[in-house]
Amino acid sequence: MADAPAAEPAEEDVIVDPWTVSGNINYDKLIEQFGSQPLTPALIEKFERVTGRTAHTWIRRGIFFSHRDLDAILDNHAAGKPMYLYTGRGPSSESLHLGHLIPFHFTKYLQDVFRCPLVIQMTDDEKFLWKDLQLDECHRLAAENAKDIIACGFDITRTFIFSDLDYIGSMYPNIVRIQKAVTYNQVRGIFGFDDSCNIGKHAFPAVQAAPSFPSSFPHIFGTRVDIPCLIPCAIDQDPYFRMTRDVAPRLGFLKPALLHSKFFPALQGATSKMSASDESSAIFCTDSQKQIRDKVNRYAYSGGRETVEEHREKGGDLATDISYQWLRFFLHDDAELARIGDEYSSGRMLSGEIKAELVKCLVPLVAQHQQARALVTDDVVKTFMTPRPLVGASAES
Amino acid sequence: MADAPAAEPAEEDVIVDPWTVSGNINYDKLIEQFGSQPLTPALIEKFERVTGRTAHTWIRRGIFFSHRDLDAILDNHAAGKPMYLYTGRGPSSESLHLGHLIPFHFTKYLQDVFRCPLVIQMTDDEKFLWKDLQLDECHRLAAENAKDIIACGFDITRTFIFSDLDYIGSMYPNIVRIQKAVTYNQVRGIFGFDDSCNIGKHAFPAVQAAPSFPSSFPHIFGTRVDIPCLIPCAIDQDPYFRMTRDVAPRLGFLKPALLHSKFFPALQGATSKMSASDESSAIFCTDSQKQIRDKVNRYAYSGGRETVEEHREKGGDLATDISYQWLRFFLHDDAELARIGDEYSSGRMLSGEIKAELVKCLVPLVAQHQQARALVTDDVVKTFMTPRPLVGASAES
Repeated sequence: MADAPAAEPAEEDVIVDPWTVSGNINYDKLIEQFGSQPLTPALIEKFERVTGRTAHTWIRRGIFFSHRDLDAILDNHAAGKPMYLYTGRGPSSESLHLGHLIPFHFTKYLQDVFRCPLVIQMTDDEKFLWKDLQLDECHRLAAENAKDIIACGFDITRTFIFSDLDYIGSMYPNIVRIQKAVTYNQVRGIFGFDDSCNIGKHAFPAVQAAPSFPSSFPHIFGTRVDIPCLIPCAIDQDPYFRMTRDVAPRLGFLKPALLHSKFFPALQGATSKMSASDESSAIFCTDSQKQIRDKVNRYAYSGGRETVEEHREKGGDLATDISYQWLRFFLHDDAELARIGDEYSSGRMLSGEIKAELVKCLVPLVAQHQQARALVTDDVVKTFMTPRPLVGASAES
Repeated sequence: MADAPAAEPAEEDVIVDPWTVSGNINYDKLIEQFGSQPLTPALIEKFERVTGRTAHTWIRRGIFFSHRDLDAILDNHAAGKPMYLYTGRGPSSESLHLGHLIPFHFTKYLQDVFRCPLVIQMTDDEKFLWKDLQLDECHRLAAENAKDIIACGFDITRTFIFSDLDYIGSMYPNIVRIQKAVTYNQVRGIFGFDDSCNIGKHAFPAVQAAPSFPSSFPHIFGTRVDIPCLIPCAIDQDPYFRMTRDVAPRLGFLKPALLHSKFFPALQGATSKMSASDESSAIFCTDSQKQIRDKVNRYAYSGGRETVEEHREKGGDLATDISYQWLRFFLHDDAELARIGDEYSSGRMLSGEIKAELVKCLVPLVAQHQQARALVTDDVVKTFMTPRPLVGASAES
C-alpha cells in the first residue's frame, strides 16, 4: 500500500488517491464523495457493546472516522463467527516514520479485540512498478519493514505477513478472477491511470484486492469464502477497495469491510506532505532522543502567536498546531490531552512548552519501538512470513 | 499460447496476431512486416553442419520458414554452450487437433537435436482471461492437454511443463520486470488491445514473455542469465516475442531466438479457420479411424476439377488441395510425396485417391498418438509438471 500522507480540513482542488493526497481536505465531503459511511456515536457504542472493549483513542477522537460495513462485521463477531483483518504497506524506505505506524498500532488493537487472524501485505511489487527502485531492493525493504511491523506487537500465532514477490503464486487464481472482472476503463476512472503507464500498474489493483478474499490464503482458511474481512487503512487506499467491493459479488465473494483513518500531518503542518525521503518532515522510528527533540523544536509547525504577549492574550491555535495534533494521536490519556489543550489554547502554555510535551510523549514511544524491534530476529520474521495455519481462523479460540 | 489457426498465400486485409489470423497470407511480406529473417538454404546448411542432423522435413519444405537469431543459437551450440527451448499452449479445449501437434512434434525434434532442456508453458490464465471459461476448467484442461504433449515423446529428464496458475510465483520477479518496461501504449500497438479490455489482458504479454529468460526457472538454471532460449512457434505468436526481444537488453537479459512456422490449413481450405470448437474443421487426436476417413472424404477441400475428364486433362491444383497440403506436413517420405504430387497434378490421380493417401497417412499417425497418450499416467504428468532440475541445463551431458 502507498504511504498515508499528510493533510487536514478546508476545501477545493482536493485530490485523494493512493499516490496523491493534496489540498485541504474536508473529511465530511470525502465521505460523501467516496460513498462511505461516517463512524457515528451509535456505531461506536455498538462496537464497545459487542466487543466488550473501550473504543480505541483514535476512534473516540475521530481519527478513524469513516467505514464500510463495520456494522455487519460486528454482527458477525457477535454471532461468534470467524473473521479476519487485512492491512498492508508499500516498502519503499528503510525505516518507517510515526505516520506509518498508525495503521499497524490500530490493527494490533483490532487483533486484540477480535482475536482473529491478520494478513499483512507488503507490496514490494507495487513499489518496484511505481518507483525508481531495483526489485531486490524492494524485496529486501519488505523484510526490513516487517521487523518494524512485528515490533508493534502482533500475535505470531494469528498473523501472516507476506511479500507479494514471494506469495503471489497462492493468490494468483483470485488475482486473475479479479482482473477478468475489471476493465482498463474502470481502473483509469478509479485510479487516474493513463496510456503511458506501464502495464504492471494497470494490473496491480487486482493484487491489492486479492487479500480481501479468504480463499487467497488456503493455508489459513482452506477453501472457505464465507469469512468476512475487515481492512483498517488510511482513506487514500479506499479506491482499491471500492473496486474490490464492486467485483466481489460477481465472483461469489463477500465484500470486504473497511475502517478509514484521516491522514497523519507532517511536522511542517497539515498541508505539507510527510515523506520518507524528506528527513525533516517526519519523526522516524530510528531517530534518537536528540533527533526527536531537535526536529520537533525546529520544524513542528506552531499554532502559537507572533509574540509571547499576543500568545498569552489570544492563546495558541489547536487546529494548526502540530504538537497538539500529534498529541491527539500519541497521548492516549484523555485528561492529560484536555489539560494541555486548555493550557495552550488559553495562552498559559507557550509553543516551546507544548513542544516539550510532545517530545516527552514521543521519546518513550520511539524508544519502546526500538527496543521491541531489536528483539525481532530474522527467525521471527521468517516465522511471520511463512505460509502456515493461524489460530482463530475457523471459530472462537 | 493461442491456437495456430489456418491460412495460406495471396494479399490484402491480412491480420496476423495471437488472436486473429485472417486474409490470404503472403509469408514473404509477413517476414518483411514483422522484421524477422527468412530461413535461407545457407542457414539450413549450417544447421545441418553444426547439429550433424538432417534438417526436419518442415524446415526443408519451408513450413518453418522464418527465424530470429537462429544463427547465434547454432554458434552457441557449436561452442558446446548450454541453451534451452521454450514453447507453449493455451489450453482451451479438451482434445488437440493435428494442427496443435505441429509445434510439439517440431520441438521434440529440436530437443533430440540439441539435447537441451525444454520448458512448455500452459497458459491457462490466458485462456481464462480471454474465453468464457471457468478458472478450474482452464486449469484442468492444462493437465489434460499436457498428456497429449507428453505423448509427442519429450524426454522426461529434460522437459518441464507448467501451468501458469501453478507456477506463476517463480516467474513473478521477471514478470514485473517486464511489466515495468512496457507501457500500455506499446501493448496496444503490438496486440491491438483497447480500453474495454480487462486489465489481466493488458498484463498478460509479460507472462508469456517471462519463460524466454532462464532466470524464470531457478530450479533448472539457478541464477544464470546467459543461457539462450530458442522458441519454435507459429508466426502469429511473434508479437509476444518482438516485445520480449525489445525489453530484454534493458533488463540485462538475452533476446530469445525464434523459429516461425506457417499456419496449418483447415480441412475446408487454407482461408477458413481450423477451430477446436468446430468438429468438422479439423482431425482431432481423439478421432477414430472411421471419423478420420469420413472427415477427409466429406470436408477436405479438393484441388480437383469439376469432372473426371477435366481432371484427367488439366490435373489437380496442389496449392489449394488440402489432402496434398496436409501430406506436405505429415508424409515425411520425400520421394512418396513427390510421386503423389506428380500423379495428382498430372491428373492421373483423382481427388478420391489423394484423399485415400491422406487417410492412409493420418490413421497410423493418430493411432500412434492415441497409444502413446494412453501410456501417460497421472504420475507421469505430475513428474513433467514438477519444478525440478533438468539434464543438460549447464553443459553438454
